Amino acid sequence: MSDQVLKKEFLYEGKAKRLFTTNSENLLWVEFKDDLTAFNAEIKGSFKGKGEINLKISTFIFMYLESKGLTTHLKEALSEKDWVVEKTDIIPLEVVVRNKAAGSICKRLGLDNGQKFDPPMFEVFYKKDELSDPLLTKEHVDFLNLCSNEDYEIVKSLALKINELLRPLFLDANIDLVDFKVEFGKDSKGDIILADEISPDSCRLWDLDTGESMDKDRFRKDLGLVKENYEEILNRISEVFS
Amino acid sequence: MSDQVLKKEFLYEGKAKRLFTTNSENLLWVEFKDDLTAFNAEIKGSFKGKGEINLKISTFIFMYLESKGLTTHLKEALSEKDWVVEKTDIIPLEVVVRNKAAGSICKRLGLDNGQKFDPPMFEVFYKKDELSDPLLTKEHVDFLNLCSNEDYEIVKSLALKINELLRPLFLDANIDLVDFKVEFGKDSKGDIILADEISPDSCRLWDLDTGESMDKDRFRKDLGLVKENYEEILNRISEVFS
Repeated sequence: MSDQVLKKEFLYEGKAKRLFTTNSENLLWVEFKDDLTAFNAEIKGSFKGKGEINLKISTFIFMYLESKGLTTHLKEALSEKDWVVEKTDIIPLEVVVRNKAAGSICKRLGLDNGQKFDPPMFEVFYKKDELSDPLLTKEHVDFLNLCSNEDYEIVKSLALKINELLRPLFLDANIDLVDFKVEFGKDSKGDIILADEISPDSCRLWDLDTGESMDKDRFRKDLGLVKENYEEILNRISEVFS
Repeated sequence: MSDQVLKKEFLYEGKAKRLFTTNSENLLWVEFKDDLTAFNAEIKGSFKGKGEINLKISTFIFMYLESKGLTTHLKEALSEKDWVVEKTDIIPLEVVVRNKAAGSICKRLGLDNGQKFDPPMFEVFYKKDELSDPLLTKEHVDFLNLCSNEDYEIVKSLALKINELLRPLFLDANIDLVDFKVEFGKDSKGDIILADEISPDSCRLWDLDTGESMDKDRFRKDLGLVKENYEEILNRISEVFS
């Protein structure tokens, strides 16, 4: 397949990826960038190889989810920084599942860092940079007409299913999956499939023994050793699959 | 009844009211204050007679709601600043119903001031000053164990019922009920009843002809004529009931 798909027109540059059209109408070319941003891009950084690490971690995870029957937009990992994905209409929700409290929810609700959610906490945020991705209630989703009631329930159950599948996977890598953000899109058949990526940029991942952050919080909080921790995640995940 | 109820121990001072025990275990004494606060009490003010005006408006509204079959905590309006109310366990939710977008929701969701909600928008906020009353989803309410599922549905249907009853009442006074905040409590029988107050402090009320704010937004936005507008609300509501 890779010999057939050709990168064509530049489409869009996001915070961590560039999108291009391809010679196939239903496929997009995704280039993983080395850039890191935090707090709605108020803080910017990068390290060489970040795109490659995230692509590899995301590829492992998306292929694992596919093996468990979950459909994702990933069609092929072409190189160290390029994916070919199915084109979807992105549902403008940042869908978050939390197993423990960390980050914004601690401040918002006065929770302790690490406080457990059982059942996992499901939240959706409006994917809208100019509003800094505000928290949404179901009533807001309905009013803004972001997706149908039925689609919302599918998104919720898919997100919780992904959590159920990924928690034990990360546990095998001695990593605590604290929370993660995913996005979904509708493919040409109208089915809702997992889009975007799942990487240390979009998850909170704590070392199971030390509780240390191994994810983008190292960048957000200026803890140092960002690259080393991303690499360590990749190493551990690779070992699980080896 | 008024000759029997006696004000006893000071209990609690809120932003707009003082609470006292009475000689009856199930009754509280509420004193309406002249104080005005905005933005979680970052801005403070007052005008002489505000407590009296709010008490009178709230009395009209609560008695009207009672006449329509809705139970409130109001037992008796004793004087120009004192209510006797039924003691309740307050459910720690600030329950908001919006017919049009105004204030915080415009910034949060990027809506135009005055944009219509049809059906009305229902929101709940965590009644917690130290967190600045954050917006809550149903999942948050469940996790924080603020009320049962059944109680949440009762609170929601009561709030929407109050909106249905008050919109035409205010329309008769040539006032547009843009939004309002209410609180509910459980009485000694375990029934959920309307607590707190409904006044220009807790509603957005726009003159139907001019669209001018006649409520606490005049204070929040430093528009002047705060007292005059509160008085005008009282006059118009009084006329509706005369």
